[in-house]
Amino acid sequence: MRAALCGRARARPPRRESRARAAAMRVTFVTGNARKLDEARAILGASATIELTSRALDLPELQGEPLDVARAKARRAAALLNGPALVEDTSLSYDALNGLPGVYVKWFLEKTGHAGLVDLLAAHDDKRAVARCVLAYARGPSDEEPLTFVGETAGRIVDARGPRDFGWDCVFEPEGRAETYAEMDAATKNACSHRYRALEAFRAHAANERM
Amino acid sequence: MRAALCGRARARPPRRESRARAAAMRVTFVTGNARKLDEARAILGASATIELTSRALDLPELQGEPLDVARAKARRAAALLNGPALVEDTSLSYDALNGLPGVYVKWFLEKTGHAGLVDLLAAHDDKRAVARCVLAYARGPSDEEPLTFVGETAGRIVDARGPRDFGWDCVFEPEGRAETYAEMDAATKNACSHRYRALEAFRAHAANERM
Repeated sequence: MRAALCGRARARPPRRESRARAAAMRVTFVTGNARKLDEARAILGASATIELTSRALDLPELQGEPLDVARAKARRAAALLNGPALVEDTSLSYDALNGLPGVYVKWFLEKTGHAGLVDLLAAHDDKRAVARCVLAYARGPSDEEPLTFVGETAGRIVDARGPRDFGWDCVFEPEGRAETYAEMDAATKNACSHRYRALEAFRAHAANERM
Repeated sequence: MRAALCGRARARPPRRESRARAAAMRVTFVTGNARKLDEARAILGASATIELTSRALDLPELQGEPLDVARAKARRAAALLNGPALVEDTSLSYDALNGLPGVYVKWFLEKTGHAGLVDLLAAHDDKRAVARCVLAYARGPSDEEPLTFVGETAGRIVDARGPRDFGWDCVFEPEGRAETYAEMDAATKNACSHRYRALEAFRAHAANERM
């Protein structure tokens, strides 16, 4: 299980931005998913350095590797918002499929359901997978190199257990646990989830920026 | 097996475009794949109404449905070329996976190889699939509604047979045939291929436009 900060920090921002950050870093989290927003608020909302708002935008998503997909989405969001934007991209990478379905997992879930996500591994004994959340933060509409914050949780794909109402949570069992994400209460899931780890990395970065 | 023309025709083009078309319709086929270009030239090159050139551009590809993916790519290509652009997007849709891997087939091929494309169906007796080529033609950089030409060939996914050097040709056996695409000579494949059908639909449209 890993959490990592990627992306290069930029040169010092212009004075006006520095003043704004000294008060609180205003961040628009682009999501139309209430559960994702709740998870983000549970972590970032407690931070005095981040003032979190949200917007639902219809953002096209590129094909490609997780970091590239998230960065492109952040650039697009910042252009539409004409300001800083935080976006999220989630992927589920099966070891036996060399990282796939990866960022395309939402399409497999939509078209083939939870059983379909399990069946993708029917030919393989190796059921290991990595749940990955990439947060990309574009500081403004001209930010060509959004910062990325990656949270990863290793686990395995299992037959669906627990409520079926949030993504692929019911078929993912984190390493060393006996429950799927879906069988955990919110606090237990947050303690080990890929999204928590990415949000925590972002929170730590924001706190550090303020210092 | 089907071939279909989709997309709305636009209002009559301005006079200057009409004159150019009367001589020959100059089309830039955006591809960096020599084999795809050969296939296009074999069909379109014989047409007196189309003057085919090619360009290799690095075009980002969106996630989504095949027609939307191709249209977005055509718009981007026409903007980069500042002129008409023809692009191609190929997908391989498994019936048992409700259309997937679809436009993502190239990623599965890249990450899991031909065996991986077969193994995706390990849990299913139904091995049927549709090979689909979508050509999208943007008439210029401001064309928001590129025309699309779809060629489809039904078949099934089989263990790899024939040369392995062109995409997923060795694991796709068209309906009613005993060979995979890879086992056919070029003329035989062209007579039944999804790409041929899409190119033929485009050629017919171009010929009609000239009348």
